[in-house]
Amino acid sequence: MSTKNICIAVIGAGGVGSVFVQQLAWLKYNLSDWKLHLCYIAIIDKALYHADYSDIDISNAIQLLETGGKSLPPLAETIDFLSKAPYKVIAVDNTSSQAIAEAYPDMLKKGISIITPNKKAFSSDYPLWQALWSNTAPDGPFLYHESSVGAGMPIIQTLNDMVQTGDEITRIEGVFSGTLSYLFNSFSPRSGSGGKWSAMVTEAKRLGFTEPDPRDDLNGMDVARKITILGRIAGVPIESATSFSVQSLIPMPLREGYSASEFLEKLPEYDHVMEEHREAAKAAGKVIRYVGSVDVVKRVAEVGLQWVDLSHPMANLEGSDNIISFYTKRYGNLPLTIRGAGAGADVTAMGVTGDLLKVLRQM
Amino acid sequence: MSTKNICIAVIGAGGVGSVFVQQLAWLKYNLSDWKLHLCYIAIIDKALYHADYSDIDISNAIQLLETGGKSLPPLAETIDFLSKAPYKVIAVDNTSSQAIAEAYPDMLKKGISIITPNKKAFSSDYPLWQALWSNTAPDGPFLYHESSVGAGMPIIQTLNDMVQTGDEITRIEGVFSGTLSYLFNSFSPRSGSGGKWSAMVTEAKRLGFTEPDPRDDLNGMDVARKITILGRIAGVPIESATSFSVQSLIPMPLREGYSASEFLEKLPEYDHVMEEHREAAKAAGKVIRYVGSVDVVKRVAEVGLQWVDLSHPMANLEGSDNIISFYTKRYGNLPLTIRGAGAGADVTAMGVTGDLLKVLRQM
Repeated sequence: MSTKNICIAVIGAGGVGSVFVQQLAWLKYNLSDWKLHLCYIAIIDKALYHADYSDIDISNAIQLLETGGKSLPPLAETIDFLSKAPYKVIAVDNTSSQAIAEAYPDMLKKGISIITPNKKAFSSDYPLWQALWSNTAPDGPFLYHESSVGAGMPIIQTLNDMVQTGDEITRIEGVFSGTLSYLFNSFSPRSGSGGKWSAMVTEAKRLGFTEPDPRDDLNGMDVARKITILGRIAGVPIESATSFSVQSLIPMPLREGYSASEFLEKLPEYDHVMEEHREAAKAAGKVIRYVGSVDVVKRVAEVGLQWVDLSHPMANLEGSDNIISFYTKRYGNLPLTIRGAGAGADVTAMGVTGDLLKVLRQM
Repeated sequence: MSTKNICIAVIGAGGVGSVFVQQLAWLKYNLSDWKLHLCYIAIIDKALYHADYSDIDISNAIQLLETGGKSLPPLAETIDFLSKAPYKVIAVDNTSSQAIAEAYPDMLKKGISIITPNKKAFSSDYPLWQALWSNTAPDGPFLYHESSVGAGMPIIQTLNDMVQTGDEITRIEGVFSGTLSYLFNSFSPRSGSGGKWSAMVTEAKRLGFTEPDPRDDLNGMDVARKITILGRIAGVPIESATSFSVQSLIPMPLREGYSASEFLEKLPEYDHVMEEHREAAKAAGKVIRYVGSVDVVKRVAEVGLQWVDLSHPMANLEGSDNIISFYTKRYGNLPLTIRGAGAGADVTAMGVTGDLLKVLRQM
């Protein structure tokens, strides 16, 4: 086939974004059928692009951006610039920005394909979800978001394949947060006894396994967003990530009015609550896990602590692994289960790069 | 986009094939951007097609074939017929025929895309493997074979995504045979004691979980073929499915000269061998599983019995589930693991139909 020229715009070049740019450089070198042109790259306050859309050297892009970037133009201006590119454009949004997510419908309308690990667009209000998909088409623009759930694990594509080939999903459940997986695998282990809850949260933060403010993990909203995305793909019109029951693990008095470090100082006062929960489960021969689920038949989504049998795969997790099970008509009694690292820059970027290959093949 | 006309040829309409035809009817009804024309359908001794390539009614195809089919034309004639179709052709090979597999390079050369759960083409000699891929191209013809390993589970696409985005696979291992999974989950359970090996094999055959001759499962060749496929995708040029160590579970004296039922009658004489193996593992706190693996770094493939820790996911399998783990550079210490039904007409056909969607999107 004749070589196809494609313009790539990278929005966000931090943890995931910078690894994606490395993978993009590798891909450009290894692909002969598509010619990838990096025509835009931006971080939070800077952007690099040329009025004539000439190439930015991918293998040196982040350094070029840091040294030669201009101040970030308004989003509308960026979209306008990209929509006039001489080639088809794929924008890769590596941010977690709500504002950029809300601009996706406009970008799609202007013919810009989008690939992103950003959960926001897919887990905010339902009309935005509808606006996204009504602006994609089988011959483009395309919208792919594999890394929005489970990082590079094949979650979104697997669920889409099931739905699009006519399988009926009955239930989806799993451990969707690497941080909460790590905390509960240690706090409520299959054998032996875990330590103090507050000490584990503090240690997890020290190791870089939590958000800067661990309450952003403990409030369960990250899991709620992922459940919203999967439930919607499975056919449940979930209104938003805050429209169903989500159990927060932040003690009520510590939700507001304290800094992250003050929160960690005060957390030990509430250790007995989690400990009682753990010991009650243990007395019943179970462990506790922070589980997200959607019952597709009853149309009920739920996020919170659950008691889990010792023989259950969720009880046997290690490290910060995610595990996600799909119960479907075709799979019968036993689900299709996928387990592995659901966070981390390398695997998240791999999901993005995998999406890029899928989009390129359709262009 | 304008509607694209595609000609589908279904070769093999038995267990998997007949379910695929049902899914195809569903897909035709639900797809608006591609118009699917069933222009050829065949079983072992009959074929139905029209000289003018006019449509065969998909929802009634198998009955039409049975009542109106002509005797099966030579394969070369079929390929010639398909290569002259007025639309792009996708041939779906639902057989396990070696002869058809060997014709894939010729079909691809003539522009016919191929989708198949048939392992033969991908696990025979290495030159055939090379001939397959050298005759595909990014703008077609396409060759997809998700269901050749793990039925509808996302195994092939996941491994391809890893390789094609630049991850380095270090090891692949798992339980790849539904039959052998079922047998060992029962014979060497995590808790309690399993029964007699020969009784379990006989019971599995009665339940329809084995091939008509259970030796076709017990010889390990099905697993060896799957390991060959995955190893090759991961970059190990495995010469063939018989070029590495494969442990047969058929006692040497029973490999030839007996019918399937004579084999089952004589099998109890060898029960002590399997029992000793099981008890030795048990004494070490382990269970036995029939494992396929490929060490990508050392380039060593291996298929046979292994002792497995009780906490290992392979020890915790249920029913006839498969489990497949990918160890890669990006995934680090803990692998990406996929578990679920790796056999059965519904899920195998789903893998085929999923491939069909992927091919259509690129046409």
